[in-house]
Amino acid sequence: MRHSGRQIDELRNVSIQPHCNPFAEGSCLIKCGNTQVICTASVEDFVPFFRRRTGLGWVTAEYSMLPRSTHTRSRRDRGANVSGRTVEIQRLIGRTLRTAIDFAQLGERQIVVDCDVIVADGGTRCASITGGWVALQLAVNKLLKSRVIYKNAIIHQIMAVSCGRVKNRNVLDLDYEEDSNAEVDGNFVMTSNNDLVEIQCSGEGGTIPQDAVGDLLRLAFKGSQELAQIQNEALQNDRP
Amino acid sequence: MRHSGRQIDELRNVSIQPHCNPFAEGSCLIKCGNTQVICTASVEDFVPFFRRRTGLGWVTAEYSMLPRSTHTRSRRDRGANVSGRTVEIQRLIGRTLRTAIDFAQLGERQIVVDCDVIVADGGTRCASITGGWVALQLAVNKLLKSRVIYKNAIIHQIMAVSCGRVKNRNVLDLDYEEDSNAEVDGNFVMTSNNDLVEIQCSGEGGTIPQDAVGDLLRLAFKGSQELAQIQNEALQNDRP
Amino acid sequence: MRHSGRQIDELRNVSIQPHCNPFAEGSCLIKCGNTQVICTASVEDFVPFFRRRTGLGWVTAEYSMLPRSTHTRSRRDRGANVSGRTVEIQRLIGRTLRTAIDFAQLGERQIVVDCDVIVADGGTRCASITGGWVALQLAVNKLLKSRVIYKNAIIHQIMAVSCGRVKNRNVLDLDYEEDSNAEVDGNFVMTSNNDLVEIQCSGEGGTIPQDAVGDLLRLAFKGSQELAQIQNEALQNDRP
Amino acid sequence: MRHSGRQIDELRNVSIQPHCNPFAEGSCLIKCGNTQVICTASVEDFVPFFRRRTGLGWVTAEYSMLPRSTHTRSRRDRGANVSGRTVEIQRLIGRTLRTAIDFAQLGERQIVVDCDVIVADGGTRCASITGGWVALQLAVNKLLKSRVIYKNAIIHQIMAVSCGRVKNRNVLDLDYEEDSNAEVDGNFVMTSNNDLVEIQCSGEGGTIPQDAVGDLLRLAFKGSQELAQIQNEALQNDRP
Amino acid sequence: MRHSGRQIDELRNVSIQPHCNPFAEGSCLIKCGNTQVICTASVEDFVPFFRRRTGLGWVTAEYSMLPRSTHTRSRRDRGANVSGRTVEIQRLIGRTLRTAIDFAQLGERQIVVDCDVIVADGGTRCASITGGWVALQLAVNKLLKSRVIYKNAIIHQIMAVSCGRVKNRNVLDLDYEEDSNAEVDGNFVMTSNNDLVEIQCSGEGGTIPQDAVGDLLRLAFKGSQELAQIQNEALQNDRP
Amino acid sequence: MRHSGRQIDELRNVSIQPHCNPFAEGSCLIKCGNTQVICTASVEDFVPFFRRRTGLGWVTAEYSMLPRSTHTRSRRDRGANVSGRTVEIQRLIGRTLRTAIDFAQLGERQIVVDCDVIVADGGTRCASITGGWVALQLAVNKLLKSRVIYKNAIIHQIMAVSCGRVKNRNVLDLDYEEDSNAEVDGNFVMTSNNDLVEIQCSGEGGTIPQDAVGDLLRLAFKGSQELAQIQNEALQNDRP
Repeated sequence: MRHSGRQIDELRNVSIQPHCNPFAEGSCLIKCGNTQVICTASVEDFVPFFRRRTGLGWVTAEYSMLPRSTHTRSRRDRGANVSGRTVEIQRLIGRTLRTAIDFAQLGERQIVVDCDVIVADGGTRCASITGGWVALQLAVNKLLKSRVIYKNAIIHQIMAVSCGRVKNRNVLDLDYEEDSNAEVDGNFVMTSNNDLVEIQCSGEGGTIPQDAVGDLLRLAFKGSQELAQIQNEALQNDRP
Repeated sequence: MRHSGRQIDELRNVSIQPHCNPFAEGSCLIKCGNTQVICTASVEDFVPFFRRRTGLGWVTAEYSMLPRSTHTRSRRDRGANVSGRTVEIQRLIGRTLRTAIDFAQLGERQIVVDCDVIVADGGTRCASITGGWVALQLAVNKLLKSRVIYKNAIIHQIMAVSCGRVKNRNVLDLDYEEDSNAEVDGNFVMTSNNDLVEIQCSGEGGTIPQDAVGDLLRLAFKGSQELAQIQNEALQNDRP
Repeated sequence: MRHSGRQIDELRNVSIQPHCNPFAEGSCLIKCGNTQVICTASVEDFVPFFRRRTGLGWVTAEYSMLPRSTHTRSRRDRGANVSGRTVEIQRLIGRTLRTAIDFAQLGERQIVVDCDVIVADGGTRCASITGGWVALQLAVNKLLKSRVIYKNAIIHQIMAVSCGRVKNRNVLDLDYEEDSNAEVDGNFVMTSNNDLVEIQCSGEGGTIPQDAVGDLLRLAFKGSQELAQIQNEALQNDRP
Repeated sequence: MRHSGRQIDELRNVSIQPHCNPFAEGSCLIKCGNTQVICTASVEDFVPFFRRRTGLGWVTAEYSMLPRSTHTRSRRDRGANVSGRTVEIQRLIGRTLRTAIDFAQLGERQIVVDCDVIVADGGTRCASITGGWVALQLAVNKLLKSRVIYKNAIIHQIMAVSCGRVKNRNVLDLDYEEDSNAEVDGNFVMTSNNDLVEIQCSGEGGTIPQDAVGDLLRLAFKGSQELAQIQNEALQNDRP
Repeated sequence: MRHSGRQIDELRNVSIQPHCNPFAEGSCLIKCGNTQVICTASVEDFVPFFRRRTGLGWVTAEYSMLPRSTHTRSRRDRGANVSGRTVEIQRLIGRTLRTAIDFAQLGERQIVVDCDVIVADGGTRCASITGGWVALQLAVNKLLKSRVIYKNAIIHQIMAVSCGRVKNRNVLDLDYEEDSNAEVDGNFVMTSNNDLVEIQCSGEGGTIPQDAVGDLLRLAFKGSQELAQIQNEALQNDRP
Repeated sequence: MRHSGRQIDELRNVSIQPHCNPFAEGSCLIKCGNTQVICTASVEDFVPFFRRRTGLGWVTAEYSMLPRSTHTRSRRDRGANVSGRTVEIQRLIGRTLRTAIDFAQLGERQIVVDCDVIVADGGTRCASITGGWVALQLAVNKLLKSRVIYKNAIIHQIMAVSCGRVKNRNVLDLDYEEDSNAEVDGNFVMTSNNDLVEIQCSGEGGTIPQDAVGDLLRLAFKGSQELAQIQNEALQNDRP
């Protein structure tokens, strides 16, 4: 049994509350256990310079933690440098969410997905991707309803889940305490068709047994199917 | 009548939800109309260098807006410079909250009050002070309960309210639309004893008629009395 | 009696020497007691992006202290961050000087007012505003004489004075020693018509008694009348 | 056939020249086809603050590209921000090389591995890890020879190789042209025992077919065995 | 004849007003024609880390131009980077003034020489060195009078002068107009014994004829003798 | 005799390997004793804003040391500030290489010369200029061969050498050990016609005897003649 009483292949309670922000084109508050992330998708009428005059849109992401989202307060990502961890995570979010979009359908506009962590109890990058995709779909829906675009620019449903190896057992959806003690730590981004978008899996101070990879993948497939269902429920009153 | 239907001396609906953050020593979510601010108070066991070996504590504040808290997305306060407006506001919050504290009772520890604006519809700096004081009191209560300190270090109850002149009328608690069109814009920080802590009042592109100051002060006294009551209700289950 | 022998409503010796800089469109050296500030007004043929194609001009200000303007040397405002105090002061100077100008008369050009403190003995922000206004008027005069503009773009005469509460007495124009010991510290920006432009008044570690505000205002009115006279004398050979 | 004439499971020509730097405790120049990286390992007699008084050492890495290592000149990673890509890569190098070390044997000293890319023709992060490990081993050998430490602190032999999917075929060790056109791009860090240290695998604009993962892993195992052999040859005259 | 009517070996009018700053240990205002520089020398009771526990002192310099010291306003050296020209000049000032000092006599304290250019009409770096040395001597005199040190730590009298080639003639002490049109631009730092401390001489877009060097040196020796005399007059009431 | 056994007017072994970089328009690896610098010249189809629409080209330089190019590892020139020494050196390289070019022949394009120090054993700035000029000539040759320009834009052959005074003897081409102990340190940039481009000569903690200047110049002329010969050999297979 896990310290929380969960089964090894059991997600924490996950809820997604859409439209939590009155101004953003798309937004939701995603909770995974204690972890809470506000995701907003903001549509802008311009694209980065490398996309200009291509007819193609762009999606980018920013990730940030409130300073007291963690057990002890950490410094804001202000000053000269954003921390390396933040850079790594927001690049992951942006890269994987771009897989979801047909940029020709989006046209020359940019959607910025902001993932702001209110409470961090493990799994914030996965929650950001899962919630960020919902915000992105809501923003695209708004573009469709207001007839700015005419075809759904979303071509994949994307979600992410962490799996890892704790006390020699492979488990799904690690909370902070499990994450701090994991021997292997993996993040799996997938589509609702069970295709993979990105795998990041690292031994934490040790190596990864060869047979663990397949087992972690199986846990990830199970978790992502459940997350897809929760995403769909959050969107059911807001279909394009 | 104001565009919202409020009376000239009427606050927006204000609510303060204490303990919104599971880790912070003190925290609350304050809502003033659409405006929402998460305030956390984090206790640290050290003080800035200018307080070392004085036996005295310190309080400082940081203020930040989520990029999509506003009608259109603005850039994060990352990169080299925090915006001048942010600097000005967080200095105001820190300076006025320090008035609330007996630093000798607090001892050589620092409390950092983080005010993170989730939705910005006018009055965010005042909401940050009003909510920040509640978070500060909750943190001090926690120090008292855990017997780190023995006397209540809070010596003043502090709250803040905006008053201004819109279409030639002095009004209480401006929302974003009123604020954008105000001829005079004032922020008044007070104690529950109706003493003033700080006045900032400026003509927005014009001058301030001499008789307006007294009138704005009267509105501020009324508003602050009501805010004091709402602060007390939020704290009623958590008295030191 | 004050430590300097001044009456409670007595300004320090104030002098304003116009045209101290051979290149700037407008300039003066203002001395208030030991405090010395060089103010220059530089006319630029462009405006910030938010003013482009509006037909309106702009005024902005920068404030800086020489590192040894103070009793002990402080670090230059170089490196990544300008200090919070500097940001707060230069925003105040810019905001209040903008009140003096009719931007349509100025046309699409910007005037940058630089206030560089040579010696700091209290009251530098007020001296910067009082001297900055003289530099601004001189620059506008130059535009008039060279027929770049045809009507005086200055619509208000602006000056600033500090008042505060020291040893339980309200006094005018605090020097550094008084400022360091003040219970209440206020800066009042006014017009020569006795209208207010901005009030910033804060309790320094304590609260402001309710009746002090009116008394400080009266001192400020007296001081500003005298400063207006000194400004006029500095300008008498350079009327538009 | 690949554009270079290589088989799908064929590495480019790889050479490792040890001791290319006369000052560093360990160093090598690694060439993989046209790609060239100088790796140096510098031993420092202190550790980061989070390791102090633990008796444990540390390894960190920095990665940088000469501005004209690429086809067109890019800006130096100077100025305020190191690029996100650089941050991501140097975190990967540091994290995986730390797996190689028994920090108790190293004692309270830090080894900084600098990977400076002289020519970039694909696979620079993998070359940095493979060459960085050789520099690390050489530095540890030097500590052993000079009797600063008494047991080999290296507990794993680490190497890295890229595998990806180009034109629907899974191939080993992508050069720049293949990398630019890859549908799936993976980096695999391994030990000479065929255990995994880290997997990073992402669909480049598309998704990863489920069966591709196993195939890419097999290619990676083959490549890493050959790299281990080349590392051993480079070290044969410098065994601890 | 030069455009100013000066002879080719004639300095502009130079004056040095000592004690222009009431707080600094040493200070002067140096004027060379229109050029004006405030030089202050601040004594600090600590040294940079590389001097600690050596018994030796240190001298460093900072150079800055007020934004409107020049014909058109330039940006302040704030923000991320100080300009390359500023860095180059303040390193020159610090390096040459250090030649003046016996650091063992100074003891473990640092003197910071700030050179702030009020008006820039050519020759600001030379004026900074000539005036900076006077400020330095005054600061050392103060240390002697207050019996912090017992022997004069000044071992050389230092001054600097520019010489250059304008319209094929070698001239002394270039003003801004000459400097802008010079074919060769040189700065010569010397002692009152006619020894050289530093030569910086560069062809401005062209090369330096071989015989010009000797001729420029002769002009520099003449000018430095006159500057030494003016320094001595400024110090005559303040001998150690 | 010098510690290396060299005569006082003897250069270290110098070699220049052209085309060391497969992408740059011009490149070479220059070795002077142990010192090694990679010089690349990159042609860009735009010029800095101050050159736009003038028909004239531009040359600029960047200089950087690998962190372990030195005896002990130093920090990378990342973060907010490039070190003052780096700024000073890259300004020198850019300024002197610009003397070599006829900007009208180059047309509105910029050549960026990057000088990256691989091993630093004294004389890196001179090696950068000598090697940088070769890279520049190779880049111009490429422009000629590809008929982008039609006349050789190189009008001077430039090289640089250090001379200094060590143990009271004037010597040519100081290595790191000599440089660390020099009483006078000079860098002389010249043309193959024995004209001077720039002299930088400073007393290191002391003054420069008057007669030393002529002697150092004579050594520099000898060294530069030999360097010109080595440059010519490196270019012999690549004449325009």
